[in-house]
Amino acid sequence: MGDPAGIGPELCLKVISNPRILATCVPVIVGDAKLLTRVAQKMGQSFHAEKLTGESLSDGGVRILDGSSLNLDEVKPGEISQISGQASFDFVATAIEAAKSGTVDAVVTCPIHKESWQLAGIKYPGHTELFAAENGTNRFCMMMTAPAFSCSLVTTHVGYREVPELITPSRIVEVGMLTHSALTKILGRKPKLTMLGLNPHAGENGLFGNQEEELSIGPAVEILVSRGIEIDGPIPADTAFLPAKRQLTDGYICMYHDQGLIPFKAFNFDTGVNVTLGLEKMIRTSVDHGTAMNIAWQGIADESSLVSAIELATKLASSGTELNPENNLK
Amino acid sequence: MGDPAGIGPELCLKVISNPRILATCVPVIVGDAKLLTRVAQKMGQSFHAEKLTGESLSDGGVRILDGSSLNLDEVKPGEISQISGQASFDFVATAIEAAKSGTVDAVVTCPIHKESWQLAGIKYPGHTELFAAENGTNRFCMMMTAPAFSCSLVTTHVGYREVPELITPSRIVEVGMLTHSALTKILGRKPKLTMLGLNPHAGENGLFGNQEEELSIGPAVEILVSRGIEIDGPIPADTAFLPAKRQLTDGYICMYHDQGLIPFKAFNFDTGVNVTLGLEKMIRTSVDHGTAMNIAWQGIADESSLVSAIELATKLASSGTELNPENNLK
Repeated sequence: MGDPAGIGPELCLKVISNPRILATCVPVIVGDAKLLTRVAQKMGQSFHAEKLTGESLSDGGVRILDGSSLNLDEVKPGEISQISGQASFDFVATAIEAAKSGTVDAVVTCPIHKESWQLAGIKYPGHTELFAAENGTNRFCMMMTAPAFSCSLVTTHVGYREVPELITPSRIVEVGMLTHSALTKILGRKPKLTMLGLNPHAGENGLFGNQEEELSIGPAVEILVSRGIEIDGPIPADTAFLPAKRQLTDGYICMYHDQGLIPFKAFNFDTGVNVTLGLEKMIRTSVDHGTAMNIAWQGIADESSLVSAIELATKLASSGTELNPENNLK
Repeated sequence: MGDPAGIGPELCLKVISNPRILATCVPVIVGDAKLLTRVAQKMGQSFHAEKLTGESLSDGGVRILDGSSLNLDEVKPGEISQISGQASFDFVATAIEAAKSGTVDAVVTCPIHKESWQLAGIKYPGHTELFAAENGTNRFCMMMTAPAFSCSLVTTHVGYREVPELITPSRIVEVGMLTHSALTKILGRKPKLTMLGLNPHAGENGLFGNQEEELSIGPAVEILVSRGIEIDGPIPADTAFLPAKRQLTDGYICMYHDQGLIPFKAFNFDTGVNVTLGLEKMIRTSVDHGTAMNIAWQGIADESSLVSAIELATKLASSGTELNPENNLK
């Protein structure tokens, strides 16, 4: 359900009445039934969902799993608070447990608010790192995916200066393998990948930068090619998103956050889904936007990113829960 | 004319028969008449232009100014060579002299090939740095401009790692002032500027990075605002190019090459013009593409970027040659 003071609750209310969603999965809202009822009333609707028990979910419908023991009666729309931070953390932790135990096949996250998490003393910078910690892995990556193209990030939430030290050949190969594996499932065929350089003009043969293209990124491309992956590069980032190149690329391997997310968000601002790749036996997708505190509980928030995230999670769950690249290449 | 072995010569041939161009300026090709004749013959055309002498250009027509004493009979299309590098350097140097002496009102450059420049022992990484050196200034910047939006670069052709040291408050203010001044002329009104952060999420209040947003970029915005410039930021780069924000922004101040050129080229791939801001009493615009060696002399190259570059140079020349920001604010 995400942050209770954000747009997460109303997005949940919208998707559980979407026939396309109900036809392909049994939604389980991990959140707070009383708060959902309050938001529904504000929107002039009602909220009904059966409590999730130990039963089989095969007979359809919608379930609610109370994800926190906190009382949220004081939560107001748009308000950053310690209680909203703790509750939204509890929801995610509960959802992860439900996935680990096999109660649910995949987890889709609505947005949390980082400042509320900080007020609650939560040490994780975001969802992704919590999922990775709960999975005991540091071998994961964030991928943004949309029908037009996808972007995987070699580094994510680190400062600009920290990036060069982190883009080692082994890390780049890891992200390339995870991306190949995930896009193979999503597209139903071998994807075409493009590797980006770090420096302007991909270093222009060592003219700019510290030869990151020659020493780290190029060797990683060679290893990926030797494993049967279709990938070219490193190419200059500034021409990589021209229309002709976009049409030939299913997934870009990007060295840093903004290198991938500037073009991804500019082109896919309402269709993007955030997927965490590399989690053991767990599928996790997420909406592509924040809590939008300024419009919370008004019922005007657009649910299309959540619909896309649920549809992608359903698709990945149907083709097996493992987004792990091992033994996945011919 | 740019590199003689690239698409520059055929682009020159195309624009001198464009009535829209001939109606607003007198084109002077700084290049090689014999080579242009060879390229024209290959395209099934002929080439005629009067030699530029000391006369007034007010009576229209097209002029040729032989820009190099080298014999280019051996130059072949698509071939990187020392002689093409030296000739294309000579053309630019001759054009700069013509601008300095007042013979021409503006210089528009076709693409040169960096490897050919290197073979010829030329030390400049590109046109822009040569123009700056010939102008005795290091107070200049590169701006990419198109009808949709413009991007100015605080740092340009430097390695990824070198950027943080170079984005000082005074440099950022300089680029902001130059951009404000140039866009005021181009648009005929005060522009709206957006300042980008360096780190993911513009540092998220110091969570990522070394507080470049708090220590350098934010203070520069305050100075610019205090000088009457309409600018906001620093904002996160990854959401700065969403449609809603693009519509509110005339010019982005970008910290590094790819931060500006990834979105600029993705959205304006056939309409962009490169302008050098800050040159004393000299206007210089350039095409937005390279030499396209693989299709040179076939007559299939698209001249629209050169047409845009000439039109912008004409506009800037008509509104006064000075792109310098001093005394330019009310």
